[in-house]
This record gives sequence, C-alpha cells and structure tokens, in this order.
Amino acid sequence: AASTPPVSKGEGTDGDRELAKALAAFSVDEPLAPAIASRAYGSGHYPYVDRPKRKTYKSHLRDLQIELLKVQDWARRSGERIVIVFEGRDAAGKGGTIHRFVQHLNPRFVRVVALDKPTDVETAQWYFQRYVAHLPYRGEIVIFDRSWYNRAVVEPVMGFCTPQQTTQFLDQVPVFEKMLVEDGIRLFKVWLDIGREMQLKRLHARHQDPLKRWKLSPVDLSAPARWEAISTARNVMIEASHTTSAPWTVVLANDKMRARLGAIRQVLAHLPYERRDDKIIGVPDPAIILDGHTFLD
Amino acid sequence: AASTPPVSKGEGTDGDRELAKALAAFSVDEPLAPAIASRAYGSGHYPYVDRPKRKTYKSHLRDLQIELLKVQDWARRSGERIVIVFEGRDAAGKGGTIHRFVQHLNPRFVRVVALDKPTDVETAQWYFQRYVAHLPYRGEIVIFDRSWYNRAVVEPVMGFCTPQQTTQFLDQVPVFEKMLVEDGIRLFKVWLDIGREMQLKRLHARHQDPLKRWKLSPVDLSAPARWEAISTARNVMIEASHTTSAPWTVVLANDKMRARLGAIRQVLAHLPYERRDDKIIGVPDPAIILDGHTFLD
Amino acid sequence: AASTPPVSKGEGTDGDRELAKALAAFSVDEPLAPAIASRAYGSGHYPYVDRPKRKTYKSHLRDLQIELLKVQDWARRSGERIVIVFEGRDAAGKGGTIHRFVQHLNPRFVRVVALDKPTDVETAQWYFQRYVAHLPYRGEIVIFDRSWYNRAVVEPVMGFCTPQQTTQFLDQVPVFEKMLVEDGIRLFKVWLDIGREMQLKRLHARHQDPLKRWKLSPVDLSAPARWEAISTARNVMIEASHTTSAPWTVVLANDKMRARLGAIRQVLAHLPYERRDDKIIGVPDPAIILDGHTFLD
Amino acid sequence: AASTPPVSKGEGTDGDRELAKALAAFSVDEPLAPAIASRAYGSGHYPYVDRPKRKTYKSHLRDLQIELLKVQDWARRSGERIVIVFEGRDAAGKGGTIHRFVQHLNPRFVRVVALDKPTDVETAQWYFQRYVAHLPYRGEIVIFDRSWYNRAVVEPVMGFCTPQQTTQFLDQVPVFEKMLVEDGIRLFKVWLDIGREMQLKRLHARHQDPLKRWKLSPVDLSAPARWEAISTARNVMIEASHTTSAPWTVVLANDKMRARLGAIRQVLAHLPYERRDDKIIGVPDPAIILDGHTFLD
Ligand SMILES: Nc1ncnc2c1ncn2[C@@H]1O[C@H](COP(=O)(O)OP(=O)(O)O)[C@@H](O)[C@H]1O
Ligand SMILES: Nc1ncnc2c1ncn2[C@@H]1O[C@H](COP(=O)(O)OP(=O)(O)O)[C@@H](O)[C@H]1O
Ligand SMILES: Nc1ncnc2c1ncn2[C@@H]1O[C@H](COP(=O)(O)OP(=O)(O)O)[C@@H](O)[C@H]1O
Ligand SMILES: Nc1ncnc2c1ncn2[C@@H]1O[C@H](COP(=O)(O)O)[C@@H](O)[C@H]1O
Repeated sequence: AASTPPVSKGEGTDGDRELAKALAAFSVDEPLAPAIASRAYGSGHYPYVDRPKRKTYKSHLRDLQIELLKVQDWARRSGERIVIVFEGRDAAGKGGTIHRFVQHLNPRFVRVVALDKPTDVETAQWYFQRYVAHLPYRGEIVIFDRSWYNRAVVEPVMGFCTPQQTTQFLDQVPVFEKMLVEDGIRLFKVWLDIGREMQLKRLHARHQDPLKRWKLSPVDLSAPARWEAISTARNVMIEASHTTSAPWTVVLANDKMRARLGAIRQVLAHLPYERRDDKIIGVPDPAIILDGHTFLD
Repeated sequence: AASTPPVSKGEGTDGDRELAKALAAFSVDEPLAPAIASRAYGSGHYPYVDRPKRKTYKSHLRDLQIELLKVQDWARRSGERIVIVFEGRDAAGKGGTIHRFVQHLNPRFVRVVALDKPTDVETAQWYFQRYVAHLPYRGEIVIFDRSWYNRAVVEPVMGFCTPQQTTQFLDQVPVFEKMLVEDGIRLFKVWLDIGREMQLKRLHARHQDPLKRWKLSPVDLSAPARWEAISTARNVMIEASHTTSAPWTVVLANDKMRARLGAIRQVLAHLPYERRDDKIIGVPDPAIILDGHTFLD
Repeated sequence: AASTPPVSKGEGTDGDRELAKALAAFSVDEPLAPAIASRAYGSGHYPYVDRPKRKTYKSHLRDLQIELLKVQDWARRSGERIVIVFEGRDAAGKGGTIHRFVQHLNPRFVRVVALDKPTDVETAQWYFQRYVAHLPYRGEIVIFDRSWYNRAVVEPVMGFCTPQQTTQFLDQVPVFEKMLVEDGIRLFKVWLDIGREMQLKRLHARHQDPLKRWKLSPVDLSAPARWEAISTARNVMIEASHTTSAPWTVVLANDKMRARLGAIRQVLAHLPYERRDDKIIGVPDPAIILDGHTFLD
Repeated sequence: AASTPPVSKGEGTDGDRELAKALAAFSVDEPLAPAIASRAYGSGHYPYVDRPKRKTYKSHLRDLQIELLKVQDWARRSGERIVIVFEGRDAAGKGGTIHRFVQHLNPRFVRVVALDKPTDVETAQWYFQRYVAHLPYRGEIVIFDRSWYNRAVVEPVMGFCTPQQTTQFLDQVPVFEKMLVEDGIRLFKVWLDIGREMQLKRLHARHQDPLKRWKLSPVDLSAPARWEAISTARNVMIEASHTTSAPWTVVLANDKMRARLGAIRQVLAHLPYERRDDKIIGVPDPAIILDGHTFLD
C-alpha cells in the first residue's frame, strides 16, 4: 500500500541500514540526519521527483482561488452547505492547505473549525455533539481542521479513548454522515498523506524555527514513534468510513504545492457551481489524488 | 384505536347530535357548551369516571418527587444522562407535567428545553442540530417540552414543512435516537393524549383566564380544526419511531393528576437508581399508561 | 437601624437570655428552639404582628400579576428593557418572590438569571462580563436572583474575593449602573431583609424537608454565624450604591406574602405602562417598603 | 493637522488643479488617474519619500514576531489580559496589520474580533454588550478589527446611529475603558491613518483584483465621498477618548511595512514581558507613531 514506510522494505542495502539508524536516532534537538533529509521528498512512495516551480504554483493557486470565490458566491445564492474535513498525521500540511482554501474567501461565510481537546463538559456529552454545533448553515462553508475522526486515529493511538469507543464510532460514523448528506450538506473528507522521512523533516524544521516551535505539541512529538500505529488506524478508518455518500480522498502530500492545488481541484471538480471554469480546474492528478479504496489497495 | 373521538362513533343518539353541533359551533369567545363540558372528562375513551382526591394526589406526588431527587443524585454520582421528551396536542398538559418533574430538583442539573420556532439560522442548519445542542452532559437530566418530533406532527399539520421533510425525518429519527442510546443516554418519549372535548374545555378555560390567555397561540387556536390531521400524524409518527431502543409511552391524560403521577412512575420504573423505593413507585397503571404499539392497536 | 438583631438589644430580660442561648445552640439537626420559633415573625423589628389572610393575598397577587402581564405587553410593544435585581440573605425569600413575578408571564420575554459560582474562565474575565451577557434586549424583562452584588456581600463575607476587589467593585458599580440606565434600561434593585430568628427558622425548616434539604449549600449553613458580617456588608453596599439613577429598595420580608406583594407593587408603581390600574397597585406600604437611605437611618 | 488632505491646501498650482479634477472624477471602474497614483505615497503629509527594503522589513518583522511570542508566553504565565483595538478608514491596512500580529501566535490564546453589523437582537441591547462578550480572559490577547468606536465614526458618518447616540457614546467610553483598565486589562487603541490619494489608490486596486473585489462593501465605496466627515469624526473621537488610562496611538500608515512594524513596536514597548529584547524593539518612530494629542495638534 502507498503508506508502507520505505524502511520496512528492501532487504538491506547500505542506504537502508543508514536510514534505519537515522530513524531510530531521530530527535528534534539533534541536527537532521542527511539520510532522512535526502529521502524526505520521495518518502512513502511519493511518485514525483521534481518540484514544481513556485511561480507556476502561485499562478495556478490564484486561478483556483478565484474559482473558490465563485463557489462561495454560488453557495450563498443557492443556500448550499459545504463541509470539508481535513485529516492527516501531524505535519501533513492540514493548516497550510486550509489556509489556501480560505485565504481570499469572505470570512463571514466560511469558518475553520479546529477544536481543542474536549473540555470536561464536552467529554460528558454525546461524542458528535461538539462537532454538530459547528455544522454550516445555509450558504456557508465549514472546514474542519481535524474532526470527529479524532476518535478513529489520534484518540485510540494516544490512548485517549477506549477501543470500544473507537469501534462504536466507526459503526456510527457512516450513519451520522449519511444523515448530514441526506440533509443536503455536501461533505468532503480529505486525508493528507506524507512519508515517514517527510514527517521527521518537517517536525525537525518546526523545532528549529522559533516562530513555529510552540506548535509542536506532545502529541506531535510522539508521532514518529507511533508511525505504524497511525498507519493501521488510518487504514481501518478509511475501510470503515469510505462510503458512497461520504467517500474519502487521499492526497499524497510530500509536496505541499501539489497537495494544495490537488485538494482544491478535487473539491472544485465535485461542485456544480455557476460560471465554473473547467479548463482551470483540470483533472485531479491521479498520481497523488486517490480515492479511499484505491489508496488502500 | 384509543384516539378515535367519540363523536365519530355511535349511530346518532340525541346526545351525539347535540355534541356534534357543539363541536362545530365551538369558539373560545362563546360560553362553553354544556355538551362539551360534561363529556370532557370521559372523552377519547378515557377509562376513568371518578376523579382522584387532591390530597391523595399531593401526597403521592410528594413521595414520587422524593424519588426523583434520588434519581438526580444517582445521575450525578454515576454520570448518567437522561432525556425525557414530552409530546402531545396543545393543552394536553405537557407544561404542568414537566413542572412536577422539575419542581424540587436542583435546577443546576436538570434543564427544560422548550425551543421557540426555529430562527432563520436554525432553519438553515441540519434539522437535528438545534436539539443536539441541548443534549445532556454527564449527570444531567434534560426534559424536552416538544422536541424534534415537531417535524412529525406540528410542522406537517400546520404546513411548516414539506411532506418530504417529514418522510425524511421519520426515516432518520430511529437512527438518530439509536446513536444517542448507544452513546449511553437514557431516552424516554412520552405522548400525553387527551380527548377532543377535553382539549376544547381547556382551551376555552385558558381563554377565559386573563393570566393564561396570552398562552393561546395561533397554533393552539387552530388545533381543534386539525383534530383529525393531528391524530393521523401522531399514529404515523408512533408507528415509525416506536423502536426497541427508543419506545414511546402514551399517557391518557384527561385527568391531570393521574397523568402526572403516571408519567413520573413510568420514568422511575425504568431507572436503576440507588435507594429506589419500589413500593412508592408501584406499577404504572395499565389503563392509562400504554406502550406505543398497544396504543395503536 | 431596622436591621439590628433583637438579641443585641435590651439588657438582659429572661427572654433575652433564653434567646441568646437558643441562638448559640442553633443547629439544623436539632429541633428548633421554641425561643427562636416564637420570635421569628417579629424578629429584626418587623413591624407587623398579624398575618394576612391567604385568600386575600391570593386575590391581590392575582390582580398584580395581571398588571405584570400588562407591563410585559407594554415592554414588548415599546421595546422597554427592564432589569430587577434581587438580593438578600439566604432564606430571605428571593426565589419565591421571583417565582411570583414570572409565574404567569410569557417565558419567551422574561428571563431569570441565577448564575452559578464563576467558572475558571469567568473568574479570568472582567468581573461584570458574565452579568453583562444576560442584560435584556428590547422588550425583555430580566430578573437577577443574586447579581453582581455578590462581590459586595457574599464574596467578601465568605472570603471568595479580596477586600481590594470589593472596594473596587463598590467604586465601579455606580458608574456601571449609570451607563445601563443612560442606555435606557429600567433598573430596580431590591434587598429582601429578614430577621435573625426568621432566617434560622427557615433554614431549619428546609433542612427538615427532604424535598428542600439539597438546597442548603455550605454558604447557607454558614449564614447564621456570619449574621453580623453580612449586616455590615449590606449597609456598606447600600451606602455606596444607592444612587439617583439606581436606588435600592429594601423590603422587610419576614412575612412572605406581604413581601411578595410589596415587591411587585414597588416595581409596578415605577413603570409608566399602558392601561395601568393604580387602584390595584395602591401605594407601596411604607412600613415594609423602604428606600435604601431610609433603611440605613 | 496631519490629516488635512492636500487638496484643500495650496492656492492652485497646476498640479493641485489636476489632482482636484482627478479626485472629483474618481471611480473604481475607471483607470486610476496618474495624478492620484503618483501622489498616493506622500498624501496626507506622509513624512517619508523612500520605501523600505522588503528584505529588511521581513527580517525586522520576524524579530518582532518572536517578541510577540514572548508576550504571549508571558501573558499565559502571568494571566495578563491584553486588548488591542484597531481603527482607521477603509483600506487603512487594519486587516494586514492584524494579520502580522497574530500570524505566528498560538491561535488558542489570541482572538481577532471583527464583528459584523449588529443583529436585531444586538441592536436591542446595551451598546457595549456585544463587545464585552469578547473581552479576554486570563492569559489571552484579543484584537478588535474595528470596535465599539464604530459608534464614533462609521455609524454617525453613514447615518447608522443618531447624533445623540454618538454623544452618549463619547461620554461613556472613557468611563467604560477606565473600568476595564482598572480591572487589569492592558488596553491599546491604534488609529491607522492614511492620506486621501492612498485610500483611493488602494480602493481602486482592490476593485481591480478579482480575489479582493468582494471586500469592497457599500461602506467602503462611499468612503471617499465622506472623507471630510470621517476626518472630523475621527478628531472628535480622539479628543473625547484619548485619556490617561486609555490613550490613542495614531500610526501614519501610507507605507504598510513601516506601519506594521511601528504598530507592533508600540505595543511591545509598553508591555513589561519577560526576556524582552529592547534592542529589537527599538524606539517607535516619532515621525509616524503619534500620540493622540500630538496628532490633533
Ligand atoms: N487528552 C486528549 N483527549 C482527546 N483528544 C486530545 C487530547 N489531547 C489532544 N487531543 C486531540 O488530538 C489532536 C492532535 O493534537 P495536537 O497534535 O496537539 O494538535 P494539532 O495537531 O491539531 O496541532 C487534537 O485534535 C487534539 O484536540
Ligand atoms: N413557523 C413555524 N415553523 C416551525 N415550527 C413552528 C412555527 N410556528 C410554531 N412552530 C412550533 O410549533 C410548536 C407549537 O407552537 P405553539 O402552540 O405556539 O407552542 P406551545 O404549544 O409550545 O406553546 C412549537 O414547538 C413551535 O416552535
Ligand atoms: N467560591 C465561590 N466564589 C464566588 N462566589 C461563590 C462561591 N461559592 C458560592 N458563590 C456564590 O455565593 C452565592 C450564594 O451561594 P449559595 O448560598 O450556595 O446559593 P443560593 O443562596 O443562591 O442558593 C451564589 O451566588 C454563589 O454563586
Ligand atoms: N447598518 C449598519 N449599522 C451599524 N453598523 C454597520 C452597518 N453596516 C455596516 N456597519 C459597520 O460598519 C463597519 C464597516 O463596514 P464594512 O466596510 O461593510 O465592513 C463595520 O464594522 C460594520 O459592522
């Protein structure tokens, strides 16, 4: 599967051994091992080797953001409600992608919901309740930076919930989302997927940058050690919740620029808004934009 | 069925004709026709003729309210969440019954939720959203004075929603409630049922009382004319939403005192709280406390 | 002053000594001493000896409640905003009085605000902030069951705030209230005053009643021991905050029926609502309805 | 005063006449007149002619943002509450400046409050109420993108409130702010000031940019025509509300880079946070950072 970390493959070239050592020795406080840095971009079987030009990216992004403004306009006129859920490992690029979605939208009709860990009162309520409170009203776009899917990945992996709670969640979530979709909400679910070395490189870079260091939470710092557990939880989650009414899209995201454009394209391509410019949207790149089931295969 | 109004039965005794005329001529502004007043208590096949003694009622009520305090105490200690939904026609006695439930409870841990008609923002959201916002947290009891079931009865009968919306609601509500119950919420659903003449008598009395007249909303005033439509909607609703996880209890409520005691008993009888006094609870009276399916038969 | 407890007066009749002993020995777990019970009604220099007839009370109350409905109607039409603050010692009868105010009003346009002790978030905010959140909007009546004045009496006496905080509060409160009044809010501030023996009698009765025992908080139970401290704090508070824009009304409240009628009358007498029936309002009884300054003298 | 638009000065050089014509003919739909474009940077007596280097700006900004992180850290540890109010004409650069303040802060402890025009419910409340709801709790920084000062400038100029309401506001606002400051809130009030031609140039540019056009509200579009009215209202506002407890800072803001650095410096310079690096803060530039009174002179 696309997600198997390279370290577990191969039968022991020198490079592999060097990498294995580098991974084992990884610490945000040490300099980043060249074995990690050099493989970050291609890690997790990322299909591209070259990086896109910044200028081309900027110009594409701008065009797509103009399309997003049309979506917003259409939603407001027609009363459409749109929900976009972003999930992914720490440092997968959720925040940056979301930022590009909303950057030029009218903030009165788009909301980014990044819930803190549940308060006591929230823990004491129906699990979905605090998320339901943020569902969009007519004409609104709501983007979840992490979502109810915490119960499928972060919480079980970190031990914040019981296995029973995760099982019950995976049981209920298709029903829950079906209700929303039947109610007319357009629901997108995006998993941003990065390779192991890329995650390490980014966590390391964050730690080096005084402006970003505070972003490294204990959850983040334990992410590398839980790499496999998260992979498994992700797969179980996609398997259980990739439904016809609410399918998953997996975006291979080692390259931030491609990932951002890809995620926006994917959403645009599935919304029947007015004055849509299909030439600008193009076709979501099948090398990095995968349907949940395809990804699992 | 228990709900067929007497006027539609019989083959035309004098009394029937007199009543039919009185019903047709009913107006809150005119004196109440004796034909209505005299039949109110027995209307809708109410099984009792005699009224209980006020003093006995008060003493029973007091004992049951002490049990309710134990329930509250138990809920707070164990973290149980309890939801009681009250539905019924206008003047069925929802408010009075609810008042007796909460009268002596600690208001910090019990809430009565009587939502106003939806605002524009609320109409523009997922239908269940505004109700979900009021679900209890750990240790809390929440009583809904009318509920999401508006979409099954009041709204279609008054033309506030489309038939499709009601159909979709009836489709989704068992799934929705099952999620809550699986999440551990103890859910009670009570329909207070009164006879046609009793409703008229009470609406009339309200109109005569300067302290209560304002309570008569346009919805209330149109209730008598919609008697049959509401009966049908109620039956469809119970049929669709009387489930194993969330059954309906119908309380024949022409007699307010019996109805209040009966509703409290029914709830107490189904909660495994500490220091429960089963002698005080007794057995819910099968003549007026009916299971949803039994009622429909 | 009206509030000096009788026990501190006189130079030692037998009755005085007996009472002093009873007061010292008071405990909610013991039977109530006859010396307390017999003096409760007259305690704190209550000017009346006889009790009003229940039936007369009920009929007056009903008439005044009809007037309150007119007030509500007037407020809704004209957009008036009304705030009524109730303060007083534990067991002074705040809850019961408030209940009679709102009993027959349309609950959609009257709110009773009884805030719990501040949460961590609230403690961390501007002191007035959580109260400001509950101020009325156009057409609404808001009744505070305890209020921002906690910082003048309960909090300093119980040690929940620093003396500096109380001083600053007493400094700011006239300015704060003046802003509200200038903004058009009609503000009433009522202190319900009871005598020492009456408080003991009521606390004792509460403790005996299984339906009411839970109402006795630790704050309540320590109230008797803090009798003098509360008297002093009350006087300082009235002195500092009895202003032209927002005067205090003190209601001598050993007799609940008289107190309730008196408080309602006082409010009605100061509102220029339509169809006001001055014969029903009458003149607030000067023996038990006192202006803040008069009370202090 | 610094704010007199150049067009009203001088006795008619050719350049003046050309500019006057250009101003009169201004429309966002026409190409921008060179007479406006060329004078934008220096308009409103802006003291600088040269633009700073982008690279120097970025490096200074980065350093100052690291200081802001220290402020946030300090606030969280010590419980300090900080409020920064940004006011200024349309296109003065409030949004961009605020963005640089919060860009790298932990979003959980800083909030930007940009209130929409008041809803019906809000209009029906105490004017300050909806702002009070957003005041910070312990450890939090709250930035207002426009604020209660709407009632001093936007509302009277656009006719959204009565002159009496503005007068009352100007009367109350020093008292209101004093209460906050006495309560321990650290309050900064910043007016970003731009010249007339600069405003036109920016409004024009916004209109040309498809990503920004939607930002032009009717209020914005009427801004140029109300230039003088806004100048007057601004001066009256500063005069009335520049107090010792809550002084105004005016930032001459034709140059966005200088304005952003200047505003951040001004705030940093007045906060006694730990590990403050005074060399990085430097001294707020007196040519563009003015105290309210100095500005008026
Ligand atoms: N004790 C906890 N219980 C439940 N969820 C938690 C807990 N601690 C953290 N989380 C959740 O785990 C997710 C990841 O946490 P973190 O890495 O700190 O945040 P982020 O990656 O969003 O910056 C967040 O959604 C957070 O709410
Ligand atoms: N326009 C409407 N759209 C949807 N629901 C409405 C509308 N008008 C009234 N309702 C709902 O119908 C129910 C009955 O209304 P009413 O008889 O006025 O209230 P009640 O019987 O609770 O005093 C209420 O739950 C109310 O919210
Ligand atoms: N720790 C505390 N800090 C501040 N206020 C408190 C605290 N504990 C209780 N109070 C306040 O003291 C008041 C009196 O408390 P209590 O006697 O328990 O309630 P009540 O008399 O309203 O039933 C209440 O307004 C409560 O919010
Ligand atoms: N009708 C209105 N009443 C009061 N304030 C308004 C109104 N319309 C706009 N505003 C305020 O004017 C300011 C500028 O508006 P805008 O340029 O549209 O963002 C904002 O703070 C708005 O909230």
